[in-house]
Amino acid sequence: MAGERAATPLLKDELDIVIPTIRNLDFLEMWRPFFQPYHLIIVQDGDPSKTIKVPEGFDYELYNRNDINRILGPKASCISFKDSACRCFGYMVSKKKYIFTIDDDCFVAKDPSGKDINALEQHIKNLLSPSTPHFFNTLYDPYREGTDFVRGYPFSLREGEPTAVSHGLWLNIPDYDAPTQLVKPRERNTRYVDAVLTIPKGTLFPMCGMNLAFNRDLIGPAMYFGLMGDGQPIGRYDDMWAGWCTKVICDHLNLGIKTGLPYIWHSKASNPFVNLKKEYKGIYWQEEIIPFFKSVTLPTECKTVQDCYLELSKQVKAKLSSVDPYFTKLADAMVTWIEAWDELNPSGDASAKLANGAAK
Amino acid sequence: MAGERAATPLLKDELDIVIPTIRNLDFLEMWRPFFQPYHLIIVQDGDPSKTIKVPEGFDYELYNRNDINRILGPKASCISFKDSACRCFGYMVSKKKYIFTIDDDCFVAKDPSGKDINALEQHIKNLLSPSTPHFFNTLYDPYREGTDFVRGYPFSLREGEPTAVSHGLWLNIPDYDAPTQLVKPRERNTRYVDAVLTIPKGTLFPMCGMNLAFNRDLIGPAMYFGLMGDGQPIGRYDDMWAGWCTKVICDHLNLGIKTGLPYIWHSKASNPFVNLKKEYKGIYWQEEIIPFFKSVTLPTECKTVQDCYLELSKQVKAKLSSVDPYFTKLADAMVTWIEAWDELNPSGDASAKLANGAAK
Repeated sequence: MAGERAATPLLKDELDIVIPTIRNLDFLEMWRPFFQPYHLIIVQDGDPSKTIKVPEGFDYELYNRNDINRILGPKASCISFKDSACRCFGYMVSKKKYIFTIDDDCFVAKDPSGKDINALEQHIKNLLSPSTPHFFNTLYDPYREGTDFVRGYPFSLREGEPTAVSHGLWLNIPDYDAPTQLVKPRERNTRYVDAVLTIPKGTLFPMCGMNLAFNRDLIGPAMYFGLMGDGQPIGRYDDMWAGWCTKVICDHLNLGIKTGLPYIWHSKASNPFVNLKKEYKGIYWQEEIIPFFKSVTLPTECKTVQDCYLELSKQVKAKLSSVDPYFTKLADAMVTWIEAWDELNPSGDASAKLANGAAK
Repeated sequence: MAGERAATPLLKDELDIVIPTIRNLDFLEMWRPFFQPYHLIIVQDGDPSKTIKVPEGFDYELYNRNDINRILGPKASCISFKDSACRCFGYMVSKKKYIFTIDDDCFVAKDPSGKDINALEQHIKNLLSPSTPHFFNTLYDPYREGTDFVRGYPFSLREGEPTAVSHGLWLNIPDYDAPTQLVKPRERNTRYVDAVLTIPKGTLFPMCGMNLAFNRDLIGPAMYFGLMGDGQPIGRYDDMWAGWCTKVICDHLNLGIKTGLPYIWHSKASNPFVNLKKEYKGIYWQEEIIPFFKSVTLPTECKTVQDCYLELSKQVKAKLSSVDPYFTKLADAMVTWIEAWDELNPSGDASAKLANGAAK
């Protein structure tokens, strides 16, 4: 089995790797042994006249701003510019069942034995095994080799729920906000925690887009990274926004989100002063956004991700517009995003697949 | 600071170690460097005429069934006999703020570097730092050295909540139920997961009593291990029962429960056939008990652990008695337990301390 796997990479024809970038993709050299068999979707941010060099031998498609405008027309307004939030365009144009997205300053990390970590392989394992959102297992992911459900875990819950998202972590530079970066400029994450676990139903978490995989059929339309960067009052909350929306929708649809392994090596801290400028509104807005997401309930009639997402956009407009007019604009962009998604993903669309996939 | 700590063990005069046993306590030899400075409360189960040998040099008090009957009189009926559930008598007679309880088949484990793990010290660290039940931190316990809250974690939640319980894990023999033991007789837990995390608010977990510490002032009266063993239709659900009750009460009172480190070395698997006989009713009852605990809500008037526990006993009687008449008896025993607790812990009692301790 192990031999076979090495020969044919897992999900080779069912997974796209989405990379947002503004520079040449030299970082792919280090990932070559793991990524080369897969198809890449590169979303070029910033100046579209610039040429992004991709190392030889990778199979890829590349979209710059002109491409996005051409493909989406007026709906391109929902895709952020000059911000890595533009990556979600890649999720939309993909035709695959699974997405792995990674930042171009993330390198291959080593496990405690010194072995290179195949992050993609671990994400795939996470996505292909169920999640346990309804009850906590103290020995972590019960589906991992060498472990199981502990005494007292209800047998009726041991089948688990389909896993929609796999959230990986970072060695070296931790994913801190600007204030924490400023206070602890030298802190590095050196702790390798050998665990994967399901984030329980009803619990929100800060989803980081640096090292993330998901099942596009199950949750794709919720993975909108919002309006950030150029012309917007906020940045660095793109993945957070997607995470909050995704979590409440997964909870509603009984889908699981796992976090933990795999680690990547995050090479450099971004500038904390620049980050502070991008983040500061988010830092106080989130004090109202998070209670909002905690209290959101979606009606039972919402049976597809699209249904849920459109309902969420209404509630965002109704309840968060008083925080800042930005949320009215964002709520409209959420609707545009779904329209664009459905245009690019007609008929055999995610919602139909979901209805089958998540049926119990 | 580190030197000082080594000289005076943490919380030396504020913590009791509670050990239920039926045999000589030779296992303490291995724990001597870590336990000797502390006071032990030994609860002798089974035949009270038998003498339990305790290694030289330990400071302890020992209670057998005759002592329990003498001290509690008719209320002794709430303390189980011929089952390690009897340990909760030790929680009741303690006069300390913190309890650590451990089984006598648990030995000192080694960390991946080969160093002996001081389980008690880690429990104390867990109990003395706050918990984060309201929002998940992807880098685990944010109060641990070398880590912090990640980007997107609301600043208003970074003070955390008081930690009431520290739930430790087990290397070697995992805490499996009888069916899993039967199916996987050779499975050993060899994975050292270097993490402590808060179990989120609203999520239940299977609490194991083998390696457990708690703040008696904050949660003591909820740590009742139920009616198990001699004359009862069920065993091996003592800690589970305590865990479910404790979790819903902690959630109500905004107290935290942590799980993860420390590990102990669990030396031998109990007999799965005997376990199956003890457990089988629990295995199907829990399918109704867990939905019950998931849906329990405690009224805001319940402000002390005792209030909450008595209210819970009413709900147990009302909603679980239809599962089996055993739950009527258990609900009554819950009331007796609280009466006995308050008798042994008058005036400067846990509830009064809680009112101060947990005040925001």
